[in-house]
Formats: sequence, C-alpha cells, structure tokens
Amino acid sequence: MPQTTRGLATRQGILEVATAIASVEGLEGLTLGRLATDLSMSKSGLFAHFGSKEDLQLATIEHARQIYVDQVILPGLADAPGIATLYRLCDRYLALMEQRAFPGGCFFAAAMAEFDARPGVVRDTIAMLQRQWLDLLERAARDGVRLGELNRGVDSVQLGFELEAAMLSANWYFHLYSDARFFVLSRAAVQRTLRAAATSKGRRMLEGTEEVVRQGAERALLRVRRAAQGRTDR
Amino acid sequence: MPQTTRGLATRQGILEVATAIASVEGLEGLTLGRLATDLSMSKSGLFAHFGSKEDLQLATIEHARQIYVDQVILPGLADAPGIATLYRLCDRYLALMEQRAFPGGCFFAAAMAEFDARPGVVRDTIAMLQRQWLDLLERAARDGVRLGELNRGVDSVQLGFELEAAMLSANWYFHLYSDARFFVLSRAAVQRTLRAAATSKGRRMLEGTEEVVRQGAERALLRVRRAAQGRTDR
Repeated sequence: MPQTTRGLATRQGILEVATAIASVEGLEGLTLGRLATDLSMSKSGLFAHFGSKEDLQLATIEHARQIYVDQVILPGLADAPGIATLYRLCDRYLALMEQRAFPGGCFFAAAMAEFDARPGVVRDTIAMLQRQWLDLLERAARDGVRLGELNRGVDSVQLGFELEAAMLSANWYFHLYSDARFFVLSRAAVQRTLRAAATSKGRRMLEGTEEVVRQGAERALLRVRRAAQGRTDR
Repeated sequence: MPQTTRGLATRQGILEVATAIASVEGLEGLTLGRLATDLSMSKSGLFAHFGSKEDLQLATIEHARQIYVDQVILPGLADAPGIATLYRLCDRYLALMEQRAFPGGCFFAAAMAEFDARPGVVRDTIAMLQRQWLDLLERAARDGVRLGELNRGVDSVQLGFELEAAMLSANWYFHLYSDARFFVLSRAAVQRTLRAAATSKGRRMLEGTEEVVRQGAERALLRVRRAAQGRTDR
C-alpha cells in the first residue's frame, strides 16, 4: 500500500508521542490502546500504521535512534576524528539529556533496563544499537591513539566504557533526583578521563572545550537555583 | 499479633522469592497474585504477611537492602577508613553482581530505573537509600583526603560519582550482553580512578588490591570462555 504524504506525517506524529511515552512508561507500556487514547485516534486507525505491538515498539526505537543520530552522532562525527569526536559525542549526548529531549530520560538507557531480561527481536535491536554506540566511542578512541592525541597505551575499549559509564549514570541519577548537578559531575568526569588519556597534543585540542564545560556547568547550576527558587516561591 | 518463629521464617522465605522476582520483573510486577502462584501459597496467606502491594514492595526493598549491608557495606567498613574502604565497597559490590545474587542484576539499579518517574513512598525510599550509598562513597573519599591517601584537591562528590558510574554501568551492560568482561572493565576503571586520585601513600595501599583485581579478571574471563565452550558443545 503506497503511503501518502499525510500518512507519513501522521506516522511521524504518532512516533513522537510513542517515543515520549516509552521513555517514561517503557516500551511494554506502549500498547495500541494507550497510544490511541493519548492521540485521540481509533485503535483501528493506529492498526493501519502498525500491525502489532512489536511493530510499534520497533518503529518507536527507530524513531528514537534517528534523534540520537541527528543530535549526537552526526555532530560528533562532523568534528575532527579522534579526541575531538570523542569529546563531542559525550557533549552532545549530555546536552540532549539536559534539554530533556525525552521526558523519562535517555530512551536507550530505559530500553536497556526494561529489555535486558526479555529475549526477542526488541531486545536484540536494543543490544545491536548499544553495541554500535560503544563501537563508535571505541573507534574514535583508536583514531585518537593513531593521530597521537591519546597515549599509545590507551585501551580504546576501556576508554569507551568509562566515558559511557559517566554519561549513563548521569542520566539515571538526574532522573531519580531531578538534580542537574549530575550533568556537571558527568562533564567533569568526561574531561578528567579524556585528559588522563591524552598526549600534550590531545590536551591542547581539549583546551578549547573547557570553556564549553564551564558554560555548561553554569547553565546547569542556574537551572538548579531556579528550581530551588520555584520551590521557595510556592 | 505476635509473630511465631515459623511465621518469621516464612516471611523471610517469601521475601527471598520476592526480591528475585523484583530484580527481573520490577517492583510493579510484584503482585500478591504473582507471588502466591510462585510460592504455591494462597493470596490470603500472603495477605496476612503483607497488607498491600506497597507494603510488600517496601518489605522487599528492606530485604534487598539487608543483603547489600551484609555483603557490601559491612565488609567495606570493616577495612581501614579511606582508600581501603573505598576500594572494598566497589570490590564487594562488583563481586555481588558477579555472583548473580539477583537474577535480574543490581536490585537498586533496576528499582531506580523503574521508579524514577513514579512519585510515592516507594520512589522516596529508593532515592533515600541511593543517597545513603553515594554518601558512604563520599565519606570514605573525604576520609582518604584527611588521612593523606588521596590528593588534597580531590573532590569527594566527584570521586564518589565516578566510582558509582563504573559500577552501575557494568551492571547494565553485563545484563544486556551476559558478558562478564564488563566487570573486568569496571574493576579496571575503579583502579584507574582511585590511582589517579591517590597520593604515594594511597597508591601503596592500593597495590595489595592489584592482585585481587588480576584474580577477579581471570575468573571473569574463565567464565566467559566456559560459556563460549558451552555454546560450542551444544
């Protein structure tokens, strides 16, 4: 069945709502009934777009993936390969979380937590995409070593894991406490980890990013103060 | 109503099963009906122990907390205050996860992921216990600075966050891929983070732990190889 432009637009709109629901309620909470209620659509109207709950889950994952590609991965890869890409990938990921692009926090962190013990095509898709993300960090780390920006002894798998750990944990703690200071801790961890692995050439390349970090920290603290002010005003 | 010894034993037995279920299915999946089926008990029998689903959830959290206190926190605090305690808390936490004490992975990581967006007494309890855990890491880091084992400039909140990040992320990735190498990465991250913050006195204290790490890594890799062998044999 050929899809009309209107059909495509509607599909996009549905997936935007589905992505937001899934980040809070989980992909299992994403039933056609729930989505139909939220969108004031008929279940049969939704059924024309997505034949099954699993189809809807997979389409929602693909929609979320595209957001990370546009907002994190493409900006990261647009930078020079090596330490600049590595820094930018972390920076863009944290910025996306700070902007609360997903109301329930990182879509894929939530999906990992939900599906790690549920075998099937949804889990396999999430596992494959997380593998691609870790590979991206590891490849940028290898480029950094090759280009003399990171020390020869640096293990790219280890460095990728440590950067991912700083990002993933900031996401969980930010959402538990609604406390933006966890992003400040995460950015400082990314900087410290990269600097510890960097050559003097690599450290010079990172210096330009320090200003960005300082500004990011100030923005986050400002937001914390405003939130505290809001509570006092009430 | 005074509880008999048999009543207490039964309550312990119920909570052991409840903790295992919650680590896989989540605390929301922990209904009296589900638990009654798994235990071959009547729902009214369970109801005598736990008046409501929320009571059951809170009792399960308390049961899980006691496991972490016995297996992680008390062994950690039994060591010298400062860097030795800091190292031991991380080591014992990772050992508990490696032993698969909870079939679905870290009970509190799962609980955080499930309840961060669900206001109420269950979320508040989880948030309070996670705060106590971060405080414990931060206090050990402050002791380390005071005792001259960690550099004066070390920020105890930052160090606590980075160690927690290494632990939490190993838990999530281990369960997504059933790959024990993530514990090896996590242990190496803990060592690297502590060494980078340590004075020469602190580094000498850590040296004794290197052997422990090497053995832990070997055990983990052996397990990976055995699992791979098992797949080949089938």
